Amino acid sequence: MSKTVTTIAEVYNHALAASAISAAWEVGIFDALREAGPLDAEAFAAEQGLDAGSVQELFRALAAADVVSREGVKVRPGPNFEEADRSKSLFHWMTKGCGELFSTLPDLIREENRVGSFYRRDAAAISVACREINAEWWDPVFRPVVSGLDFSYVADLGCGSGERLIRLAQSRPGVRGLGIDAADGAIEVSTKAVADAGLSDRITITQGDATQLEARAEYAGVDLLTSFMMGHDFWPRAEAVASLRRIREVFPDLKHFLLADATRTTTYPDTEMPVFSMAFEFAHAVMGDYLPTLEEWGPVFEEAGWRLVEAHPISVPADSVMFHLVPAN
Amino acid sequence: MSKTVTTIAEVYNHALAASAISAAWEVGIFDALREAGPLDAEAFAAEQGLDAGSVQELFRALAAADVVSREGVKVRPGPNFEEADRSKSLFHWMTKGCGELFSTLPDLIREENRVGSFYRRDAAAISVACREINAEWWDPVFRPVVSGLDFSYVADLGCGSGERLIRLAQSRPGVRGLGIDAADGAIEVSTKAVADAGLSDRITITQGDATQLEARAEYAGVDLLTSFMMGHDFWPRAEAVASLRRIREVFPDLKHFLLADATRTTTYPDTEMPVFSMAFEFAHAVMGDYLPTLEEWGPVFEEAGWRLVEAHPISVPADSVMFHLVPAN
Ligand SMILES: C[S@@+](CC[C@H](N)C(=O)[O-])C[C@H]1O[C@@H](n2cnc3c(N)ncnc32)[C@H](O)[C@@H]1O
Ligand SMILES: C[S@@+](CC[C@H](N)C(=O)[O-])C[C@H]1O[C@@H](n2cnc3c(N)ncnc32)[C@H](O)[C@@H]1O
Repeated sequence: MSKTVTTIAEVYNHALAASAISAAWEVGIFDALREAGPLDAEAFAAEQGLDAGSVQELFRALAAADVVSREGVKVRPGPNFEEADRSKSLFHWMTKGCGELFSTLPDLIREENRVGSFYRRDAAAISVACREINAEWWDPVFRPVVSGLDFSYVADLGCGSGERLIRLAQSRPGVRGLGIDAADGAIEVSTKAVADAGLSDRITITQGDATQLEARAEYAGVDLLTSFMMGHDFWPRAEAVASLRRIREVFPDLKHFLLADATRTTTYPDTEMPVFSMAFEFAHAVMGDYLPTLEEWGPVFEEAGWRLVEAHPISVPADSVMFHLVPAN
Repeated sequence: MSKTVTTIAEVYNHALAASAISAAWEVGIFDALREAGPLDAEAFAAEQGLDAGSVQELFRALAAADVVSREGVKVRPGPNFEEADRSKSLFHWMTKGCGELFSTLPDLIREENRVGSFYRRDAAAISVACREINAEWWDPVFRPVVSGLDFSYVADLGCGSGERLIRLAQSRPGVRGLGIDAADGAIEVSTKAVADAGLSDRITITQGDATQLEARAEYAGVDLLTSFMMGHDFWPRAEAVASLRRIREVFPDLKHFLLADATRTTTYPDTEMPVFSMAFEFAHAVMGDYLPTLEEWGPVFEEAGWRLVEAHPISVPADSVMFHLVPAN
C-alpha cells in the first residue's frame, strides 16, 4: 500500500508538535482538556502561572499535529487528542529523556568520540516517562497475570522509581519487596518513594548490577522476580545467558520470573514504523547498546535454565512482551 | 481544503527525522547523495569514521520522512530529498540551535522561572545555520540589489559570522567594511574570519548594541548599511522607532540601508504553517521577544525618518522581506 508523501513543512512542524505534546503533559494540558473539555488558552495560562504568549504557541504546535483545534483563544481536543494523550509518555521519553542525545547526534556517532560516558540522557525524565508507560500500556498485561500468582516476597530488577514494588505491597498485605537498581538516582528516588508510602518496613532498596548478581542472604525466600524495561541490558547474547543463569542460582526459592521489555522490531517498513520503536532503536544504537529481537530471546531462556510458560504480547511499544518464566529442572 | 489527518506515529517519527536531517547535513550526507548519487551506508560510515549502527538508524529516520529510500544498505535520494537539502539549515536552527529550548519548554514557560538568562541556545549552531540560510534563500535577493548600488564603506549591524562583509569586500576591490555585533561569540568568529580572509586592513569588527548606537568617528563615510536576521531585535515598536532614528543620526553619510528579516506570519492556518515560521515564532515567544508582522514595519520607517524605496519579498522563511531604505529628508 503506497502512502501519500509527507511534506518537509509537515516534518518540520511535527518536530515542534512532539516537543509540545511532551510539554503539554507536564503543564497539565492533557488533564485539563480530558476532564474539563474545551478551554480558554489565556485563562489556562493565567491559572497555571504560565506565560500566555508561549502557551498560545504551544497550542498552535499541538494544533499542527491535530492534537487540538483552535478558534481564537478557545482550544478543543482535536482528532489526534486521545492517541496523543495515551502516547504522551513515549514523546516525553524521546524529547526530554533523550533530547540532548538526538540534538547532538553528529558528535555522538563519530567513532573518535565514542569513549567513556560520551552521551547524556535525562534520567529523571526517563523515569517519569517509564512510570506512565507502565500505567498506560504494561500494567494491563502485568496485573491479571500477577494476580493469579502465589507469592510472599518479590524482587524487582532495575526497580527504577520503586512504583511496582509499592503497588504490589499495597495490594497484598503480607508481601515483602526487594528493589535492586544500578543507578544512584533510582536508589534515591525509590528509597524515598517507599518511605513516603510508609512501606520501609516491608520494602528494601539495594544498589546492585542485575547482570552480575552475587548470592546474598536477603535473596532467600524471594519467590517472585520481576524486571521491566531493562531486559535488553542483559545483552549481548552470551552475557544474557550468563546473567539469566546467575539469577536462577542466586534466588534459590524463586517460583516465577516476569520479564518484560520492548524488543527490536524487524517487520515494519521505514515509512510505517510504529510510535516509540524507531526512537528506542535509534537511541540504543547511538549509545552502543545491543537490542535483541523477539525471536532472539526464546533460545536464551532454555540455555540459561528457564522454562517459558507464556509470552504475553504488549501492544505498545510494538513488539514488546512480558515473558512468564519458571526455573526449569 | 481539508487535509488528511496525520497519525501520532508519523508525528513521533518526524521528530526523529528532523534531528536526522540536521545531523545528516553535519556529517556530509546531503553532499554525498547530491554529488555522488546512491550510496552504501556501511561504506559511508567507514569512510567518514562514523558508527555503522547509528548511521543505519540515521538513514532509517530520514527514510521515515521520505528524504531517502533504503534497500538493504543501499541508500538513494527520496521524494523529499531536494526539499530537505534546501531546508536543512532551518532544521538545524531548530533541532540544534534551539534544541535545549524546545526540550525544556515546561521550565521555560513558567512565569516564576522567566527571570535573568532563563534559556540557553547554541549560538555557534545558530550562526552556522544562518550562514546557510543566507546562502540558500537570502543572497539571491540581496545580491542583485546590492550590485546595483554605489558604495565604498559598508557597515553590517548584527554581523554574526562576518560572512556578508567578507563577500562584499572580496567582490569590490576598494570597499571597506565595519561589523557591529553585541555577542562575544560573533565578535570572535567574525574577527577570525576576516583575518583568515586576509581582509583585516579593510574590515573592522567592533562590539556594540545596534539598538543603542552612539556617534563614533569610524561611522563617518559609511554609505551602505546592512542588517540581516536581527531586525526584530529592534522591537517592540517604540524602541524600533527610536533605534532606527538613532541609526540615521549616527551614520551621517548613509545612502542606503538594506534591512532584512523574517516577520511574524498572520495568514496561515495551524495545520498549514510553512517551514521555519512556527519554530521561529514559538522560540521568540518562549524567549519573551516581540516579533513584528510585515504590516507593522512600514509605518515605523516613516516615523523614524526613512523612506522605503522597495520591499523585496523573500520566500523562505515565509513572510521574510528585505527593505531597501534611504534617509528621508
Ligand atoms: C527504563 S528504566 C525502568 C524502570 C522500572 N523497571 C519501570 O518499569 O519503570 C530501567 C531501569 O533499569 C536500571 N538498570 C539498567 N541496567 C541495570 C543493571 N545492569 N542492573 C540494575 N539496574 C539496571 C536503570 O537504572 C533504570 O532504573
Ligand atoms: C540570527 S544572527 C544573524 C547574523 C548575520 N546577520 C547573518 O545574516 O547571518 C543575529 C545576529 O545579531 C546579533 N544581535 C542581536 N541583537 C543585537 C543587538 N542589539 N546589537 C548588535 N547585534 C545584535 C546577534 O549577536 C547575532 O550575531
